[in-house]
Amino acid sequence: MSAFFRTSRLVRPATLSARAHATQHIRRTLATAAEKPFFSDEPEGPTVSTAIPGPEGKKAIAQLDKVFDTRSLNLLARYPDSVGNYIRDPDGNTFLDVYAQIASIPVGYNNPALAEAARSPEMVTALINRPALGNFPSDDWASILETGILTVAPKGLNQVFTAMAGSDANETAYKAAFMWKRRQERGGPDVDFTNEETTSVMNNQSPGAPQLSILSFKKAFHGRLFGSLSTTRSKPIHKLDIPAFNWPQASFPALKYPLEEHAEENAKEEARCLEETERLIKEWPQPPAAVVVEPIQSEGGDNHASPAFFRGLRELTKKHNILFIVDEVQTGVGATGKFWAHEHWDLPSPPDMVTFSKKAQTAGYYYGNPELRPNKPYRQFNTWMGDPARAILFRAIIKEIERLDLVNHTAQVGDYLYAGLERLAGQYPDQIQNLRGKGQGTFIAFDSPQRDAFLKNAKSYGVNIGGSGETAVRLRPMLIFQQHHADILLDVVEKLIKS
Amino acid sequence: MSAFFRTSRLVRPATLSARAHATQHIRRTLATAAEKPFFSDEPEGPTVSTAIPGPEGKKAIAQLDKVFDTRSLNLLARYPDSVGNYIRDPDGNTFLDVYAQIASIPVGYNNPALAEAARSPEMVTALINRPALGNFPSDDWASILETGILTVAPKGLNQVFTAMAGSDANETAYKAAFMWKRRQERGGPDVDFTNEETTSVMNNQSPGAPQLSILSFKKAFHGRLFGSLSTTRSKPIHKLDIPAFNWPQASFPALKYPLEEHAEENAKEEARCLEETERLIKEWPQPPAAVVVEPIQSEGGDNHASPAFFRGLRELTKKHNILFIVDEVQTGVGATGKFWAHEHWDLPSPPDMVTFSKKAQTAGYYYGNPELRPNKPYRQFNTWMGDPARAILFRAIIKEIERLDLVNHTAQVGDYLYAGLERLAGQYPDQIQNLRGKGQGTFIAFDSPQRDAFLKNAKSYGVNIGGSGETAVRLRPMLIFQQHHADILLDVVEKLIKS
Repeated sequence: MSAFFRTSRLVRPATLSARAHATQHIRRTLATAAEKPFFSDEPEGPTVSTAIPGPEGKKAIAQLDKVFDTRSLNLLARYPDSVGNYIRDPDGNTFLDVYAQIASIPVGYNNPALAEAARSPEMVTALINRPALGNFPSDDWASILETGILTVAPKGLNQVFTAMAGSDANETAYKAAFMWKRRQERGGPDVDFTNEETTSVMNNQSPGAPQLSILSFKKAFHGRLFGSLSTTRSKPIHKLDIPAFNWPQASFPALKYPLEEHAEENAKEEARCLEETERLIKEWPQPPAAVVVEPIQSEGGDNHASPAFFRGLRELTKKHNILFIVDEVQTGVGATGKFWAHEHWDLPSPPDMVTFSKKAQTAGYYYGNPELRPNKPYRQFNTWMGDPARAILFRAIIKEIERLDLVNHTAQVGDYLYAGLERLAGQYPDQIQNLRGKGQGTFIAFDSPQRDAFLKNAKSYGVNIGGSGETAVRLRPMLIFQQHHADILLDVVEKLIKS
Repeated sequence: MSAFFRTSRLVRPATLSARAHATQHIRRTLATAAEKPFFSDEPEGPTVSTAIPGPEGKKAIAQLDKVFDTRSLNLLARYPDSVGNYIRDPDGNTFLDVYAQIASIPVGYNNPALAEAARSPEMVTALINRPALGNFPSDDWASILETGILTVAPKGLNQVFTAMAGSDANETAYKAAFMWKRRQERGGPDVDFTNEETTSVMNNQSPGAPQLSILSFKKAFHGRLFGSLSTTRSKPIHKLDIPAFNWPQASFPALKYPLEEHAEENAKEEARCLEETERLIKEWPQPPAAVVVEPIQSEGGDNHASPAFFRGLRELTKKHNILFIVDEVQTGVGATGKFWAHEHWDLPSPPDMVTFSKKAQTAGYYYGNPELRPNKPYRQFNTWMGDPARAILFRAIIKEIERLDLVNHTAQVGDYLYAGLERLAGQYPDQIQNLRGKGQGTFIAFDSPQRDAFLKNAKSYGVNIGGSGETAVRLRPMLIFQQHHADILLDVVEKLIKS
């Protein structure tokens, strides 16, 4: 296996067949015995034969930079050549992709089932006749929802407000929460707005624009528009120079890993955070209408908390008559080994709203309580309110997940990957710290003392990995990530540690 | 013509061929002599043969309402049966559509050129391999931009930040403005953030989250997320119960129509509004980083101002070293008889940013000044940053606009339509008030004393029209709207007035 990677990295730009031959040999020793690959045309492994970016990549990046800011560019990709878990660049380099477009590719590049959906007449009509969904939905919109998005609705939630991406999914959920809260305060759906409200709101003043808030957690990430950014507390660079609402943030538990070895301390830490949350709910001058939380803080550094903590939040929000919004933009759609990460919690009652995006390739929030429909039309509204083309694609994704049983698969391959990393962490405790995500599918992370170099060097070994927070290596493989991919990844991690 | 409409409204659900026969006869008297239709398969005219919604529509709406709020529903549509300027419903009714999905359908339902783009391999790969554009753009992203979005960039602006819809296009433009302003205040791109900034911003406090603002105008509409909604001042129902920033609003000129008859009064009104704007720029406690304005206030009631007013805004923003953002979400892409409405103004220097969405079927903001790229990566960023699939579609739209010379066409047909409405306004001055949009393509509106009834009844005559503000009938035909469609529309308007 080492030979393979060393060889392939030294290979000069060569014909594909020559590379295929080289990898064929290795493959036999690599693959987990009986595992059938989901993608029969995936390469046998990564190959890197130029610097990254290579000459073609450099040219294309310079071209793009003239019209589009490229300073966040990580890898310029050639998508028609990418397949399954592998992303290719214009220089012919092939990377095992365990970052997957910031955790947003669900079932592989150029998935044939998705291609079929993309070529369907239904997709073509959705693309070229884009409706204003709130005013002029198509007569098959109910069916697209019922056979797609709603088949995977979290338990207890049977309705959806569709959106475009994670940020507006969260912000429309916040808006629903504010309208709900004010309706409670006002005394029900039939109590009309006062003159004072309709007048003051046009000046952006209370009571019409109320002094209410959304409570989020330190290190949280909920998006980057003005309302969502006010609940995002990941890093200064995400927030600097942008005006923000004076909304409260509670401490998110800073747990010690492995969790099972620090049960008592961690329970104390979680109790402290719950107390702080309750205090803020009771005392913050702009009272929260809702608490929003990620099941696993992702951008903020892959920070976990226990099911008991989340049950505590559910209880607190019930007790204080405010809403509980679970942001599953990154955790949703299977990666944690459940379709929704909050299924791990055994909640006594469902969240009030669950937001989604990324792997769904569309976005929105689920809800169940009919009171979360505002009391009048045009209160929760915009021109497009989502995109039926992307909703049709999500339906195809869901079918592919079901056909291949990818949620259970991800739970299993996640356990396999975690066990491999645990072994490595035992061997190299300084290099793999705070390994986390046990029993959470492939939603796994660890801290690395030279994280940024680790990520950069991983590419020269043919693996595309992302980071989160200040020090975390964040693994976000697709749902079609298999044991033989895990073997490649583990091998590269070990090489990186040794190098 | 009257016979046609009266007959068709009385027709029981009938075979399409019978209806086609009936309309064929009328058509000869209807069509403007030598005008060749853009869509050869468009129906000859509208036909309405059931109540609206009809039995099929009612069933489908009830089904949809179980899972999706339908209280803003205007018309449930059957898109595969719709063509060109005509939208059909599940009961077989056919409407001339001069609302066009809230002004967002550019070149007709089921446009063959768009269908071809939608079926292209490039589209399929864009749909199923959706990139995180800031991190992993495709190697053809530069080309998609350069052969599409950027070919129609407003003069002086050669770069783009892509987004999902009008709201986030505006909000990302606001963010760029805030970052630019703080960079000026800080003393340039190389002056680093202070500790106080990086600390305070994590608490949503200044100086990191600065006390700056965006100045907008009374009756403006810029979107409904938290930042954009803070600049939206259209109606209370759009804003109630949602927390807002304490940002300033200036009066937008309340002009008298026809403009040429009230030149002096209108000039005074505009001078007053400019003075108020300057006072707010100088005195508002959270100083504006930018002024944002629509070329024609759309949701707010189709309110116009003169080129001189907008030149005045450009001057004021230069004078006070703040940015000038033109929101062309509704006015852009040809409807005013120029590709961008601000081309009507003869500005001494281009706007700093121009936002777009709707007819572009994608969204974003154009800019030219390289200082509007933030000084570090990851400051203006999100996972998807737009959608290449929709950018490919916009390119096909642009090509179709060029092939058919639709901007000039719209200028001409707009003049024709305006002249027809002017005649009717002369005959029925109480029913068509404040006709406006002369020389602005088909971007035409008038006030109606019973506006809501007017819009509702228009449907039973087979025309789908929208409103804006409290009393305006807002015409937003597609760019393929022709004289023979204008004749049908004018006929229906007259019938509605008489009825």
